[in-house]
Amino acid sequence: MKITAIHEETVSLRSSLRNAYINFSEMTVSIVAIVSDIVRNGRPLIGYGFHSNGRYSPGEIIRHRLIPRLMGANPGELLEDDGSNISPPRAWQVMMTNEKPGGHGERAVAVGTLDMALWDLAAKIEEKPLYRLLADRYRGGEADPDVYVYAAGGYYYPGKGIEGLEDEIRRFLDQGYLDVKIKIGGAPLAADLERIEAVLKLLGSQQSLAVDANGRFDLPTALAYAEALTPYRKQIKWYEEAGDPLDYELNARVAEISPVPIATGENLFSTQDSRNLIRYGGMKPERDYLQMDPALSYGLVEYLRTIDMLKEHGWSPRRCIPHGGHQLTLHIAAGLGLNGNESYPGVFEPFGGFADDIPVESGRVRLPDVPGIGIETKAELMKVFLPLTNQV
Amino acid sequence: MKITAIHEETVSLRSSLRNAYINFSEMTVSIVAIVSDIVRNGRPLIGYGFHSNGRYSPGEIIRHRLIPRLMGANPGELLEDDGSNISPPRAWQVMMTNEKPGGHGERAVAVGTLDMALWDLAAKIEEKPLYRLLADRYRGGEADPDVYVYAAGGYYYPGKGIEGLEDEIRRFLDQGYLDVKIKIGGAPLAADLERIEAVLKLLGSQQSLAVDANGRFDLPTALAYAEALTPYRKQIKWYEEAGDPLDYELNARVAEISPVPIATGENLFSTQDSRNLIRYGGMKPERDYLQMDPALSYGLVEYLRTIDMLKEHGWSPRRCIPHGGHQLTLHIAAGLGLNGNESYPGVFEPFGGFADDIPVESGRVRLPDVPGIGIETKAELMKVFLPLTNQV
Repeated sequence: MKITAIHEETVSLRSSLRNAYINFSEMTVSIVAIVSDIVRNGRPLIGYGFHSNGRYSPGEIIRHRLIPRLMGANPGELLEDDGSNISPPRAWQVMMTNEKPGGHGERAVAVGTLDMALWDLAAKIEEKPLYRLLADRYRGGEADPDVYVYAAGGYYYPGKGIEGLEDEIRRFLDQGYLDVKIKIGGAPLAADLERIEAVLKLLGSQQSLAVDANGRFDLPTALAYAEALTPYRKQIKWYEEAGDPLDYELNARVAEISPVPIATGENLFSTQDSRNLIRYGGMKPERDYLQMDPALSYGLVEYLRTIDMLKEHGWSPRRCIPHGGHQLTLHIAAGLGLNGNESYPGVFEPFGGFADDIPVESGRVRLPDVPGIGIETKAELMKVFLPLTNQV
Repeated sequence: MKITAIHEETVSLRSSLRNAYINFSEMTVSIVAIVSDIVRNGRPLIGYGFHSNGRYSPGEIIRHRLIPRLMGANPGELLEDDGSNISPPRAWQVMMTNEKPGGHGERAVAVGTLDMALWDLAAKIEEKPLYRLLADRYRGGEADPDVYVYAAGGYYYPGKGIEGLEDEIRRFLDQGYLDVKIKIGGAPLAADLERIEAVLKLLGSQQSLAVDANGRFDLPTALAYAEALTPYRKQIKWYEEAGDPLDYELNARVAEISPVPIATGENLFSTQDSRNLIRYGGMKPERDYLQMDPALSYGLVEYLRTIDMLKEHGWSPRRCIPHGGHQLTLHIAAGLGLNGNESYPGVFEPFGGFADDIPVESGRVRLPDVPGIGIETKAELMKVFLPLTNQV
């Protein structure tokens, strides 16, 4: 088999939302299609990929550096030993040719985008859902039948008050979610506590609320929020990204005094960065959560390395709940046995979310029984992808 | 005053050289020109910028994210309080609008490229060489009259043997350099020791040789090289980037056992990353060297923050010898009182190197007495820049 073409396009991710750090009105996303010469039902098998929200399209890196390396490789360099399927780890090595170590930013997103398409294609060639392929290759065949998801929202919109927040949370609960997450740090502490209290009143005793500062706080503010959250500790699932993602000392100080679990990692874009969090960040493997996002950080190939690194440091994959809110991480969660997956109901669509015909039930979601990642199970998402390969 | 236009172009940095990690035949560089409405001698003042070698052009980030933010800003947002000059720190804030924390890669290079042009323009508006502007603003007027430079080379070329290496080093010495640097890690240890011994025979007792592994080694190899270098300790200036730039633990282990000074930092692209090196990397402020490169890591605005951070941790700017080998870092070294600056005689031209009419003498180089960075003092470099603004 071989790759016959790779297409990339940059599309707008129109959104009026804002977290504590940025607004998303100008946000873009790269979409890619990797076309193979394997024909099934009269059409070539195609792997699709995109990247998670929050980082701009790295389209030029994909078009000028990564695609030429993949298309210029000897086809055998990209395949499994028996030549029957594409090998995402080998393709990864080819993509990273002549790239210096360090500087993990847009390049990590670009590789992650193509990596998603490579795994989608590999699973389609094996005629398996990706979670099944991952379970078979890396977990002795064991896969989780469904995945814990929580509804991440609670963004600051202009004019959105407590009532708007309450309406949003009620919609999440109506959609089948149990746990929810809201942003903090975009308003003064007292106002944020009002928002937290309003949401907690809507939750039952078995439900919990996570709060996310998006890396905004300096050390005194981060500690002040940790203390202010303490009275709500029974229902606060975690306190997320208090300070700069690379300020491991701040994280360690917060983790030390917080009775609430800590969650972070979505802005660590390599296994090396994640290892530094584990080495220096004071995270507790029996309590805290890791949110590294494969689609932003060199893909699933690198995420497998991160999981190995975590195991070496005494961390279970069950402490991982990736950022991203899309199907790639859902498959990884079910296939590799993570704790769960983020979800953004109604925002970052059509990239976010899961198969159209699979509802969230009691805060869990099942996986589609189709080959690959299941991009095809989201009608609106396929409308974005089909023009890439002139299928519409 | 205001900015009337900003231009970017991506040009090839043709080179057949190779370090321990990558070859440079496909390497590109972004060049930018920031045109102001201030006219002197009948022509608008223009600031020029580019980035250091080793990282590919981040042109799309410059064109699609940074230039629109600068050109869309209220002009007052980009100026000093009195409106008389552009403010690089304020422009920096504008460039970083709606950018999430973390993920310091191509974006850091893109901001660094425009930052260089902003400082070039600011110094031209004040009719001062940049080093003089920096000394006046940040060092009570004190500037160094010349700057220590060393000749970085010793790359692996196909077919280049010991004799080729010796010829290269002799050329460096003939050009006025005293200290030199060669790559290691692209050959087996025994072969590298032969290369080191061959170079040391060409050096006098007051001269020294630095060796650079470009982040290639795992921990056992890094330690083995540290031990193997010990017999040459009197003439080895430093042992550079033994392992992955983010593997602070490896660095600390090497720094602990090595009698030779350690140097690293060129692949740390933010103040946060540099702070982690200082916190966790085991670097010794009385012995070791820091090589962070402003043009790759959010520019001089961020480098000023890095220097502040270093001072808070007990480090003198005199321990800094930036990567890059060009005039921006030469001005920073003279103006802020760094230890010195890298130089790559004959490679990475015309971007690398200093004013055409200022030779290296006894391993030091003086600064040109022209406003700005002195891009105009390098004829071949100006040939690259002039078409950007249709001046040829």
